[in-house]
Amino acid sequence: MSALDRQFAFLREVEKLKSVTRATPIHDASRPENSAEHSWTLALYALVLADQAAPGVDVTRAVKMLLIHDLVEIDVGDVPIHSGNGQAHDSAAVQAAEAAAAKRIFGLLPNPLGDDLHVLWQEFEAAETPTAIFAKSLDRVQPVLLNEQSGGGSWVEYDVTWPQLETRVGAKIARGLPGVWVWVQARIRPWFSARGR
Amino acid sequence: MSALDRQFAFLREVEKLKSVTRATPIHDASRPENSAEHSWTLALYALVLADQAAPGVDVTRAVKMLLIHDLVEIDVGDVPIHSGNGQAHDSAAVQAAEAAAAKRIFGLLPNPLGDDLHVLWQEFEAAETPTAIFAKSLDRVQPVLLNEQSGGGSWVEYDVTWPQLETRVGAKIARGLPGVWVWVQARIRPWFSARGR
Repeated sequence: MSALDRQFAFLREVEKLKSVTRATPIHDASRPENSAEHSWTLALYALVLADQAAPGVDVTRAVKMLLIHDLVEIDVGDVPIHSGNGQAHDSAAVQAAEAAAAKRIFGLLPNPLGDDLHVLWQEFEAAETPTAIFAKSLDRVQPVLLNEQSGGGSWVEYDVTWPQLETRVGAKIARGLPGVWVWVQARIRPWFSARGR
Repeated sequence: MSALDRQFAFLREVEKLKSVTRATPIHDASRPENSAEHSWTLALYALVLADQAAPGVDVTRAVKMLLIHDLVEIDVGDVPIHSGNGQAHDSAAVQAAEAAAAKRIFGLLPNPLGDDLHVLWQEFEAAETPTAIFAKSLDRVQPVLLNEQSGGGSWVEYDVTWPQLETRVGAKIARGLPGVWVWVQARIRPWFSARGR
């Protein structure tokens, strides 16, 4: 296979992310969001909220990271944040399956490109560098605002309370985007207060 | 409104691109592709095919351009390449409506961010800089490969012939990505030959 054969084998494979659905419905609640369009939204979030990034964040690298961060779901599917009483998302079994998927999918590409994107995905998962922390925070904030926009979304499905949202989501948003979390809290707290949750 | 209010007003608005459908079905032909997930795919195309870019192409700028290039469709909808006997896509009426949509949508953002993205969209539409030519070529090549992957897609719907594909699509791919067009032709020509088109 030529390098171009391998580049297009990868680009053909990634099309499948459009069939991976998430717990969050889209803006008008007409259908579930899929992981491909979610990834697009996050890349735009990174561009638009670049002024909120901490020192040391490489926004261009964050955009690339967010474009590829969910590709492993082609093999593993999406594990919703609020599923399994908030415990399923970071389980060891899910992490092992995702690591195997990353090896397979990025392995379709010629090197060094495949290795570069694999390392970028590992950096995102580790959530230690300023860029990964920024990207992870964006990955938590967009579903919150989309749930609010669609009228409740996965908060209704999983009967999420405000303390649960603060623990599972808010703490991770605040880690990379403290100013954004202040803004988002003011926006969404009324939804929970109105329902006694 | 604060700057953050305006940033989030824009990010709320862009969610609507997930409801704009295109003529091209997704990989398994189960439903039409939407313009948000299409934009995500193109940003990945730019990263993965960066080695095919001509001298003077700024790949990072191309990624940003591709992320925002279809936002005007929130107001205008998608105009398929092969519709109106291949004439509708670039009509003056569509161009005027898209220009008005760009002004409205990028105008939601605070400046200089809103102006920067508006100028980036105008650069894409003009298709004169090496970066815009690269981005436009990617925007033509992905639907071709996706049609092939799904079994024919919009080529069947619009009864497209090989000479029409060469004129409407191939020439634009070859302008920015001549080596890619050679590869793609070899891949898709058999689909047309087998059908006598």
